Amino acid sequence: MLQIYTGNGKGKTTSALGLAIRALGHKNKVCLIQFMKKNYGYGEIKFLKKINNIDVFQYGTPEFVDIDNPKQIDLTEAENALGKANEVLESRKYDIVILDEINVALDFNLISLNSVLDLIKYKDDTELIFTGRNADAKLIEKADLVTDMKEVKHYYQKGIQARKGIEF
Amino acid sequence: MLQIYTGNGKGKTTSALGLAIRALGHKNKVCLIQFMKKNYGYGEIKFLKKINNIDVFQYGTPEFVDIDNPKQIDLTEAENALGKANEVLESRKYDIVILDEINVALDFNLISLNSVLDLIKYKDDTELIFTGRNADAKLIEKADLVTDMKEVKHYYQKGIQARKGIEF
Repeated sequence: MLQIYTGNGKGKTTSALGLAIRALGHKNKVCLIQFMKKNYGYGEIKFLKKINNIDVFQYGTPEFVDIDNPKQIDLTEAENALGKANEVLESRKYDIVILDEINVALDFNLISLNSVLDLIKYKDDTELIFTGRNADAKLIEKADLVTDMKEVKHYYQKGIQARKGIEF
Repeated sequence: MLQIYTGNGKGKTTSALGLAIRALGHKNKVCLIQFMKKNYGYGEIKFLKKINNIDVFQYGTPEFVDIDNPKQIDLTEAENALGKANEVLESRKYDIVILDEINVALDFNLISLNSVLDLIKYKDDTELIFTGRNADAKLIEKADLVTDMKEVKHYYQKGIQARKGIEF
């Protein structure tokens, strides 16, 4: 199956992480590949690095990508993330493969729609989880489950910054 | 702060679980109290029972509650869950307290709105996470962050049953 978590509200990556630990509790194997998110300081990464049966691969840089003017490294890293996704899906070693922020990598044109659509062929063997805002309409059409995380209110609006242990 | 994850889409409990592991990665202490969900077979519970710095308490029964005719045990278990929530919040031992499905317990009238509103007084000391569909408007008003998880599509609609490692 293909599950997509999109929308502008908080909860997309965290719900994929929750799915991961639910699956791990049943001794399933999980692979988490993060696009545009190379930062080992995230709480979830520190935690998951010590856990069996889950492999984590991060791509990108710790900096934000400029949507109008991405750097070469942003493109290369996103391509590498996609290559890793193809490799792990082809290996069929995992029950669940989470492609965190892949929707954003596509929205930013770091990867092509066709290359992402091509991954969906694996969805009968492996549970595929795509996260990130602005999921492409074609992906939504192909997905088996889509949740739109709508921001009703957020403390960012009150000027509160991202907090360690909560946002990262 | 008070964060609420509500709506009819998949991702509410899992996003709270994701927040838990993010916090655990930073060595924060987490308490997960589940309303209307006594079932040790859930993957996430099997997993979390072996993890340090998180305590899990389940209340309810494995059966569904009849909204029109709840049993005495349903009411008693919800009251006990609320009592535990008050106890752990009063202890100030935890950085994050997740009250999973508390919105549903309130929506089913197993607990009172005033008793839930009263918990919010702890939100300056402890990050409070409420999950469950049909969050009360008064709670949404008091919350600092609200995400409405909207179901765009779900494989249930195609007749696919809940799957081990994915839904539980």
